[in-house]
Amino acid sequence: MPFETTVQVRFGDIDGAGIVFYPRYFEMLNSAMEDWFAGALGLDFHTMHMAEDRGIPVVDISASFSAPSVLGDILTVTIVPLTLGTSSCRVEARFSCNGQHRLTMQMTVVWMSLTERKAKPWPPELRERISAGLVEQTA
Amino acid sequence: MPFETTVQVRFGDIDGAGIVFYPRYFEMLNSAMEDWFAGALGLDFHTMHMAEDRGIPVVDISASFSAPSVLGDILTVTIVPLTLGTSSCRVEARFSCNGQHRLTMQMTVVWMSLTERKAKPWPPELRERISAGLVEQTA
Amino acid sequence: MPFETTVQVRFGDIDGAGIVFYPRYFEMLNSAMEDWFAGALGLDFHTMHMAEDRGIPVVDISASFSAPSVLGDILTVTIVPLTLGTSSCRVEARFSCNGQHRLTMQMTVVWMSLTERKAKPWPPELRERISAGLVEQTA
Amino acid sequence: MPFETTVQVRFGDIDGAGIVFYPRYFEMLNSAMEDWFAGALGLDFHTMHMAEDRGIPVVDISASFSAPSVLGDILTVTIVPLTLGTSSCRVEARFSCNGQHRLTMQMTVVWMSLTERKAKPWPPELRERISAGLVEQTA
Repeated sequence: MPFETTVQVRFGDIDGAGIVFYPRYFEMLNSAMEDWFAGALGLDFHTMHMAEDRGIPVVDISASFSAPSVLGDILTVTIVPLTLGTSSCRVEARFSCNGQHRLTMQMTVVWMSLTERKAKPWPPELRERISAGLVEQTA
Repeated sequence: MPFETTVQVRFGDIDGAGIVFYPRYFEMLNSAMEDWFAGALGLDFHTMHMAEDRGIPVVDISASFSAPSVLGDILTVTIVPLTLGTSSCRVEARFSCNGQHRLTMQMTVVWMSLTERKAKPWPPELRERISAGLVEQTA
Repeated sequence: MPFETTVQVRFGDIDGAGIVFYPRYFEMLNSAMEDWFAGALGLDFHTMHMAEDRGIPVVDISASFSAPSVLGDILTVTIVPLTLGTSSCRVEARFSCNGQHRLTMQMTVVWMSLTERKAKPWPPELRERISAGLVEQTA
Repeated sequence: MPFETTVQVRFGDIDGAGIVFYPRYFEMLNSAMEDWFAGALGLDFHTMHMAEDRGIPVVDISASFSAPSVLGDILTVTIVPLTLGTSSCRVEARFSCNGQHRLTMQMTVVWMSLTERKAKPWPPELRERISAGLVEQTA
């Protein structure tokens, strides 16, 4: 079952037209990725960045917007890993509200040493846990 | 008992020195005020702004920072109304983490008609509910 | 000659790893789009949104990151319209610093009535000015 | 003559009521402080944070809002140091637009070692340049 988390659309997310200013969705995505790592993969971002000197910079990302979101909406963000490379992972995030689809994002992140600024192979535990959620394996 | 809500320090809240970039605290405060209105005063921001054409602009605000917050901290935000005028309210918000005080904010908000851009008297239900939480009355 | 504008990487754009937090690039892009409309297409965002009841919501967007940006970098953003539909436009934005490529974004925006929330045909003046910058026509 | 810089109100700064969401003013202030340090005090934030391991965290801040700002406004931010301590400085920032006053902020910053997280005495060159702008000295 794919990982899900929720985020509430706040006053500060809304633009002059009364809908979510789209750059805010990328902040929400980043928070959802934090939740995914902490909740499903067993590694919180504080430990990752501070204790383990690792980060997951985004190499590329795309987003497709289907319907706008308004103030107060509780968005469900579903995170699904699509493919897993030696040090990269392609991830899909779908945002919905009360069953209505809002947007889909796909992105590639890389497991990286922060001090060396160099890609590193995923550690075995993370590899195993990400693999467990891969779409092809749940299919 | 004062109203409490929580907010998690996210990667996007952190500056290059590894601590919360202080303007983010004002966004957190605004979200906490949303929670206070929805949770304690019975009026969510969507209804307030869209259906009732009302807002609560900030007239003045001050913040005093005691200790920094880092990635992953779960901050408790305590909201206490201090004084209540005809159309204004002075509010204190205290941020803490695991019992350690982080910052205190005080601000004055005004109950305002959005289309008229004019202060209005608090409606009776809001007045009653804010009054119930006033510090002098709980003292 | 394609439209260019600049944006400075500020302290608030930087993450805990000392580089631009990527959601900030989408805010920078949005500001660059404002500059393009005001500077090259003759329509500032205030007039567009307030007086003309029009907006240009993003339907889809992709970004590909080549090199990180750090505090103080002055980024050059180059805006090139790629294709022009009846009410849509596909735009490419390239970010560079001192000649070094940083990222490329491509997005589709739609000319929309804000009150009707419906796509509208581009007005003739905008169509003409966007057309003048189309890559295929400059090729 | 006090230091002045400008900042443009962008689409992303505006809330659902069509005016600047007030937490954005603190981001604008921080950018104006960067400009003040680089332009009047001879020390850019990149050098300060990266090469010199120094920062200027905000200890306390207050803001008083007089009139709202809207999309497209070019705000003039005037920075005036009020008092200068061994390692602290009290600064006033006034925001205006076409001569109309919008808001005033006052804050205390501290010259701090980032790795030690400890206040340090202002270096002589900074002390001298800040002193040159002190209000009591220009009075």
